[in-house]
Amino acid sequence: MRPTHRTFGASAVVFLFLALVAGRSAQAQHDALPSWSEGASKQAIMDFVGRVTKEGGPDFVRPEERIAVFDNDGTLWAEQPLYFQFLFAIDRVKALAPQHPEWKDKEPFASLLKGDLKSALGQGEHAIVEILAATHSGMSTDEFNGIVEDWFANARHPTTGKPYTDMVYQPMLELLAYLRANGFKTFIVSGGGIEFMRTFAEERYGVPPEQVVGSSGELKFQFRDGAPLLEKLPKVDFVDDGDGKPVGIQMHIGRRPIAAFGNSDGDLAMLQWTCAGPRTHFCLYVHHTDAEREWAYDRKSDIGKLDKGLDAAADGGWTVVDMKNDWKVIYPAEK
Amino acid sequence: MRPTHRTFGASAVVFLFLALVAGRSAQAQHDALPSWSEGASKQAIMDFVGRVTKEGGPDFVRPEERIAVFDNDGTLWAEQPLYFQFLFAIDRVKALAPQHPEWKDKEPFASLLKGDLKSALGQGEHAIVEILAATHSGMSTDEFNGIVEDWFANARHPTTGKPYTDMVYQPMLELLAYLRANGFKTFIVSGGGIEFMRTFAEERYGVPPEQVVGSSGELKFQFRDGAPLLEKLPKVDFVDDGDGKPVGIQMHIGRRPIAAFGNSDGDLAMLQWTCAGPRTHFCLYVHHTDAEREWAYDRKSDIGKLDKGLDAAADGGWTVVDMKNDWKVIYPAEK
Repeated sequence: MRPTHRTFGASAVVFLFLALVAGRSAQAQHDALPSWSEGASKQAIMDFVGRVTKEGGPDFVRPEERIAVFDNDGTLWAEQPLYFQFLFAIDRVKALAPQHPEWKDKEPFASLLKGDLKSALGQGEHAIVEILAATHSGMSTDEFNGIVEDWFANARHPTTGKPYTDMVYQPMLELLAYLRANGFKTFIVSGGGIEFMRTFAEERYGVPPEQVVGSSGELKFQFRDGAPLLEKLPKVDFVDDGDGKPVGIQMHIGRRPIAAFGNSDGDLAMLQWTCAGPRTHFCLYVHHTDAEREWAYDRKSDIGKLDKGLDAAADGGWTVVDMKNDWKVIYPAEK
Repeated sequence: MRPTHRTFGASAVVFLFLALVAGRSAQAQHDALPSWSEGASKQAIMDFVGRVTKEGGPDFVRPEERIAVFDNDGTLWAEQPLYFQFLFAIDRVKALAPQHPEWKDKEPFASLLKGDLKSALGQGEHAIVEILAATHSGMSTDEFNGIVEDWFANARHPTTGKPYTDMVYQPMLELLAYLRANGFKTFIVSGGGIEFMRTFAEERYGVPPEQVVGSSGELKFQFRDGAPLLEKLPKVDFVDDGDGKPVGIQMHIGRRPIAAFGNSDGDLAMLQWTCAGPRTHFCLYVHHTDAEREWAYDRKSDIGKLDKGLDAAADGGWTVVDMKNDWKVIYPAEK
């Protein structure tokens, strides 16, 4: 090796090394949560992450136990005027109506097709189950995924006009990434359909299918033309809401989370389970307080009711995000 | 900076750099499967891994889609003379008998307590369900974990005298590690109880709780003395065997695996599902052919029957491991 080569090679390595060190230092000063206003909520998140990642500290938690669980509707994306999956179901009823002439005289489909949502949903839980069964079963899992993906590509939200997947919350995207950068494994634990959420969770949230926990219908393994498939049956298997959330967590994750994020009473059991755990823990409610940029609702809302949860948050010293003041932007497009 | 310092610093960096390069090269030559004899089975595994990891190659599979699923009983550890979890249940019946004087006259417990296993199990599925309910419910998930961990610490296998967790298969431990080193995510998908397996899967197999799929009983979220817990109910929730395996995979993982490993007809649907997938795939059966070092059984066995599976493997060109000839050692202690 000629000396000039050696000198050049060594200098290049030194340069790369210094660049690496400089890069790390810049990263440490970088604001991982730029869409969060400076204030108590942001500070509480950063304090918690600082404590559980401080090796040798009293609150340190091993990386494999850094499990964070997130509700989806109202926590990671919007849920007004109706859960988006239900808007999908209504669109599907309309699309399938020509194949079901009997729906013209059969409730709850008749009201739905007339555009009378209130009457359709006012018929109680059995009506909702019937609408979900008609639109979420009778096909393979692969076929269902294709239908959902088509819908997301073309459907627009009734009041914002945005594609639904553009109505995820920018501050929560930053929070998901920040937790992962600090060794957390992030899971969705939502009342939404597990297959429905998986179609966009990896791309939008960076959460892979195996880290999505949700409600589900029964599946049946069978063969069609010699090829195996999983048929979606018109029967509810598991409802991942309320007391079902800690159960879903145990079934799918098998460890108690150390951080839980929700926005409604349906998340209360998940937050209670998380914040009664033996390790350092953190519970946060997103409080919808921004009628201008998003929606404002809590104790009296039909969708995303937050009543007992607000009381429990006050009792437990949990963090409550004031959307209006704590979030500089709501949706990614505003960034 | 003084020239001597600079020269020293650069040399040290160059040295580290070269050491790194040398280390990588040594790693490439290292045999990741030392307990596997050279032969068709080992070659097939290595060819498959080479193909799916070759970027730009026709068989390349993105790391996030490299999902590998493993049956547990008879595939990752032994299962004779009876599934180990059932031996646990029998030990629990004996331990709980003083609190259940009525069991002396009540089947299947009476036969079990007299040591007449054959009569106890010969009473059919309801007897097995009753034994499992009596030993796997009526406590919290945390309490159950403690009971299982105690049992593993003290119980010994009836013929080998080994702790049960020493009866994992060394060649399969190497295979799990080899796949993970090549970007695979490894899951257990077994008929065994999900909570039972989780107590040792992370330590023995390097498979964390959230990557264990198994059979389960129903859970109920409730409070005891003000603290939340998950109560194990005496009701079967899901049987992760046979056609249940692809269903369990879809529920927990949400992606079709590209590699599946089993040893019995109970794994057939899982292998069919995996090897009918659109991406490069690999299916393997462990064939128990070693009566001396382990057990020899297949088409006529009550435990781990491998009959239809052997035919399907021949039809599909799947890899069939001949335990006697393909594995240099069976258990880790023999290494």
